[in-house]
Amino acid sequence: MSLLKQQTYQPLTEAAAIDLALSLNVLPKNADLTCKEIGDGNLNLVFHIVDKQYDKGIIIKQALPYAKVVGESWPLTLKRAKIEADALKIFGQIAPDFVPRVYYTDDVLAVTVMEDLSHLLIARTGFIKGEAYPLISQHLGEYLAKTLFYTSDYGLGPAVKKERVKQFINPELCKITEDLIFTDPFYDAETNNFEAELRSAVEKLWQDEVLKHHVNILKKSFLTDAEVLLHGDLHTGSVFADHSETKVIDPEFAFYGPAGFDIGQVFANLLFQVIVNDKNRDIFIKHIETVWNVFENQFSHLWERENKEPLAKTSEFLEYNLSKFFDDSLGFAGCELIRRTIGLAHVADLDSIENKEIRIAAKLKALELGKNLIKLRKEIKDLKEFIHVVETVI
Amino acid sequence: MSLLKQQTYQPLTEAAAIDLALSLNVLPKNADLTCKEIGDGNLNLVFHIVDKQYDKGIIIKQALPYAKVVGESWPLTLKRAKIEADALKIFGQIAPDFVPRVYYTDDVLAVTVMEDLSHLLIARTGFIKGEAYPLISQHLGEYLAKTLFYTSDYGLGPAVKKERVKQFINPELCKITEDLIFTDPFYDAETNNFEAELRSAVEKLWQDEVLKHHVNILKKSFLTDAEVLLHGDLHTGSVFADHSETKVIDPEFAFYGPAGFDIGQVFANLLFQVIVNDKNRDIFIKHIETVWNVFENQFSHLWERENKEPLAKTSEFLEYNLSKFFDDSLGFAGCELIRRTIGLAHVADLDSIENKEIRIAAKLKALELGKNLIKLRKEIKDLKEFIHVVETVI
Repeated sequence: MSLLKQQTYQPLTEAAAIDLALSLNVLPKNADLTCKEIGDGNLNLVFHIVDKQYDKGIIIKQALPYAKVVGESWPLTLKRAKIEADALKIFGQIAPDFVPRVYYTDDVLAVTVMEDLSHLLIARTGFIKGEAYPLISQHLGEYLAKTLFYTSDYGLGPAVKKERVKQFINPELCKITEDLIFTDPFYDAETNNFEAELRSAVEKLWQDEVLKHHVNILKKSFLTDAEVLLHGDLHTGSVFADHSETKVIDPEFAFYGPAGFDIGQVFANLLFQVIVNDKNRDIFIKHIETVWNVFENQFSHLWERENKEPLAKTSEFLEYNLSKFFDDSLGFAGCELIRRTIGLAHVADLDSIENKEIRIAAKLKALELGKNLIKLRKEIKDLKEFIHVVETVI
Repeated sequence: MSLLKQQTYQPLTEAAAIDLALSLNVLPKNADLTCKEIGDGNLNLVFHIVDKQYDKGIIIKQALPYAKVVGESWPLTLKRAKIEADALKIFGQIAPDFVPRVYYTDDVLAVTVMEDLSHLLIARTGFIKGEAYPLISQHLGEYLAKTLFYTSDYGLGPAVKKERVKQFINPELCKITEDLIFTDPFYDAETNNFEAELRSAVEKLWQDEVLKHHVNILKKSFLTDAEVLLHGDLHTGSVFADHSETKVIDPEFAFYGPAGFDIGQVFANLLFQVIVNDKNRDIFIKHIETVWNVFENQFSHLWERENKEPLAKTSEFLEYNLSKFFDDSLGFAGCELIRRTIGLAHVADLDSIENKEIRIAAKLKALELGKNLIKLRKEIKDLKEFIHVVETVI
């Protein structure tokens, strides 16, 4: 049976995944393959296929036509597999060191065959285990600088960029973000999920009209601000790492949006470790500083060297853009801190704290910091002031 | 011969245009038709077909596969005819009083068959002849409020809006604006065209780094700010009018961009009359005020009544949006004033002034006002301050 260029969608079995792998010429011809489905079953099937003889593997990721969230399943287009595969290819060309290699894609089967990264660990899981990954922030800063510059009008030219905007129109996945990050946490929505001890703090957020005004502004930026091709879901669960390597996976939320969104997700998910990780707190503050410093440095370099808009290549206009990205990133980080604490999708950094008192205290800090970053983002002038705002809360 | 659903493009002759008209059931069956090609031949063929017996007409507009600009022709995709027809249909549903009716479209022939508006005059031509069209500003304010609200995320909902963004990706026509409005007038580009007496003023613009920084910001907004479906070329040459009717035509530049762009084009093209029209100056200042007041009033009404984003329906967030539209519109108006004076495409309001001294003086005022609006747009708080800035220049 060959699954190559199949005409109708069907979910793969482990046996079918092996057949597909064998037909692709990615693994040795006489490979002796084993296959294990390792996905969480919510959105995708993920087959890990290993050649026992040569110890060389591949991943076959297949989108499922539904999402299991809120207990029930809701239908979700398979087109997201094409968005993810297309984004992996583009990001892989721009920043090959930090993106898994793609060997094969099939739009009908909603399948992407890619590099096996099982020698690495999901960064969030590693952090919770006590790892700090010395190079992760330098790598993420470089990944952000390259992907956010080279997909912009200034890196691509306006005509090609417009075709990319069209290619990455992604209403379904964007709606998840629009609802779960920018809307539901700010009123008494059914999707919210928080511990009883947080109710009083949460109700204060819901009554905070100034906060909600700022969130409206940030949501509008997410809806309208087609600056760059975003990963769109760049939390530490979308990053594989070890002490020398960093790989950014799962860009199925990719679309053209505000550059600060990806940066802000990285900030927020490092901030969870700043909040909960007493032992490595300084390391994670340093990680945040390094992400921004490397991003700023490399983006500036690309702006001057690779800019396709001659009149835009001034240091004043670069500064204008960096300052906008910085403000936006603090606001988006604030939204992420709040929604991961009281919204539908939590983070293990907080939820895995067994001691209830410590856990509630950490969650209250996340809410307070989130609120402050959203409201103060335009007054916070630089990295030093940002870290100061963080330190006054933790 | 039937041209209906023809498989390949060909430019229509007058005879073929009559055949097409007869096959559409728009005119009486026994119509005795005459046809005259009335386009300027630069971008489109425009056939005016009249039934001699009933005195009822239609317009057949066909895109040509090239543009005659800069003396030579350059190739231009016929897709723009589809963009224009789609935009006419959408704007016609939203604001039927102010948009010509569309009877038929054919993507292969790049043809749109629409209402005959030959009882009206192009507003710019009317203004130069001394007309002031008492209702035009009220109508344009209403047209702007409706089209800019109902095509936004708040009027359409984010999912439908994203599909519209995709439908109206319009790289070629946007490039014309990007080059001719935001780039070429601000350096010594070959496309520029200005009288020798302006050279010293023009060279000052080219050396004004603060001005060019602001233009970079405005161009970025045009490139990235996907707020609403814009007409994209809303000068007074795209408006048919008489004393009771106003019709907005030619939306082939339509795309998702910043709302202030359409408003700013209207402001700038009314400002040319404020600059040149001594007799009716106060009427045109009043027109500008009416455009904004009607726009603000009706947009606010729609925001409160028709908003699809419940959390966004606050007066603070409405105010935030209106304030952004106002600032943006002043900046875009400034760019339009400058490019119509020294760029490739001029306006007859200025160029038709026969007395050289008066003409040069008017053009210098247009440049000065343009520069001031661009630089001061965020300091100009309201309509009164805007008019004050205008009055200090004229």
